[in-house]
Amino acid sequence: MAECLFCKIVNGELSSDIVYDDETVIAFKDINPQAPHHILIIPKKHIASVSEVSAEDEPLLGHLCGVAARLAEKIGVAEAGYRLVVNSGPHGGQAVAHLHVHLLAGRQLTWPPG
Amino acid sequence: MAECLFCKIVNGELSSDIVYDDETVIAFKDINPQAPHHILIIPKKHIASVSEVSAEDEPLLGHLCGVAARLAEKIGVAEAGYRLVVNSGPHGGQAVAHLHVHLLAGRQLTWPPG
Repeated sequence: MAECLFCKIVNGELSSDIVYDDETVIAFKDINPQAPHHILIIPKKHIASVSEVSAEDEPLLGHLCGVAARLAEKIGVAEAGYRLVVNSGPHGGQAVAHLHVHLLAGRQLTWPPG
Repeated sequence: MAECLFCKIVNGELSSDIVYDDETVIAFKDINPQAPHHILIIPKKHIASVSEVSAEDEPLLGHLCGVAARLAEKIGVAEAGYRLVVNSGPHGGQAVAHLHVHLLAGRQLTWPPG
């Protein structure tokens, strides 16, 4: 997607603070962090939102969340705890129309989650 | 897990308002809803948290999120939008030590997500 901000990060047109990169997924720091650790994990291929994930892409969606959990381990917050968030559409507050998992950690997350 | 609340829901020892059931996953209404629609999607097998998901269980994790997205479609909130949340450990506010995805919808979710 030529105009997608996150596709531009994937293909290197836009710089970002990348903390993880594999064949299907990259992760980078959120530029507007809501917690001491705030990382976005995205698929390299363009999927507009979690609502657009097909049955055959469910393993990729699981991989996004699995990478998030391993990043939490790597940055040393797994034991203290963390929250994963996926927003879809206006009520969810989805800001970029490219599927992304938020990893938030480093402080007490409160309830309700927004 | 004999003492796990959600395993008791899976095996029918505890009643709940189940809205979805397949071979590997069930979903039921949260008893303490934080939005007009608040559903929990859980694996039938006991996994303590997203931190405990192995690489071979990533497809199951993706299926949990995929089921959540299809439930959002089914209850008519996909277009308006929704939020998926997975809490892990104390900072995440994980209340039951059995992996679960929260689906929240029916109102504007705010930012930060807790």
